[in-house]
Amino acid sequence: MDTRVKTTEVITSAQLLEHWQGHRRLTRRVIEAFPEQELYTYSLGGMRPFGDMVQELLAIAVPGIRQVAGEPVEELNEQLEQAKTKAGMLALWDEATTELDRYWGQIPQERFQERILAFGEYEGTVWSTIFYFIDNEIHHRAQGYVYLRTLGLEPPQFWDR
Amino acid sequence: MDTRVKTTEVITSAQLLEHWQGHRRLTRRVIEAFPEQELYTYSLGGMRPFGDMVQELLAIAVPGIRQVAGEPVEELNEQLEQAKTKAGMLALWDEATTELDRYWGQIPQERFQERILAFGEYEGTVWSTIFYFIDNEIHHRAQGYVYLRTLGLEPPQFWDR
Repeated sequence: MDTRVKTTEVITSAQLLEHWQGHRRLTRRVIEAFPEQELYTYSLGGMRPFGDMVQELLAIAVPGIRQVAGEPVEELNEQLEQAKTKAGMLALWDEATTELDRYWGQIPQERFQERILAFGEYEGTVWSTIFYFIDNEIHHRAQGYVYLRTLGLEPPQFWDR
Repeated sequence: MDTRVKTTEVITSAQLLEHWQGHRRLTRRVIEAFPEQELYTYSLGGMRPFGDMVQELLAIAVPGIRQVAGEPVEELNEQLEQAKTKAGMLALWDEATTELDRYWGQIPQERFQERILAFGEYEGTVWSTIFYFIDNEIHHRAQGYVYLRTLGLEPPQFWDR
């Protein structure tokens, strides 16, 4: 398939994947910006440490897209892959990057407008489900920005993907 | 045009607008959740008060989409419409909601894949520019969530649009 073909789609499947991976590159830099200890202990206002939020993002992305790609439904399990160190977390992140590319390639074009019960629990269209995954990552990453700022650390630029 | 027509697009123009307006309804509830004074004064880590961030979102949304819809390029001007009260800010927000719907209806389908220099300054495709506007809103709103939490206030649910 010639991916340079002209389209009048709002956004193509390949563009949406690259958009998400761009956000994921930024989230990776936010993980890197945290000191090891603060990643797992620092919090504000009774919220979770940023490491726990990243764990949630890891629990959603690949298992969620596996289901979109036609694999059996899995329950949402945030405890599935626990990384106890920053290096371990970054390694899981990079693995997920590769897996996402792989499963995304198996999503048929007509899939995005179909209905899905994500993780057997959350109803929506496939596109709205994927947008939810991305939006949820932006949301929690932004909370990590505030954590970093209050730690006196400069977060990476939001526009730099 | 029959908007119920079957499509294999990842997301249609109408769906993207409704997705954004859903996020904007949530942002509106976050503005409402702030006490009047804290909206304009409270901050963490040297960041701006949430009211200033909302001012930025207002400066971007309608002027940005006006340009997308074919109106003359405007410079980004965050001082343009200043609301000094929460009620005034919510009124500007609601005006923008109507304006967004209006200008969005003037965007031709083939526009989303065209190149644009948003505000005469930021280069990208039309779709990536619109996604940037939405993502930037999610990003700053999430920072408002942390402000609310540290003020001992419960933010609205993220999934409730």
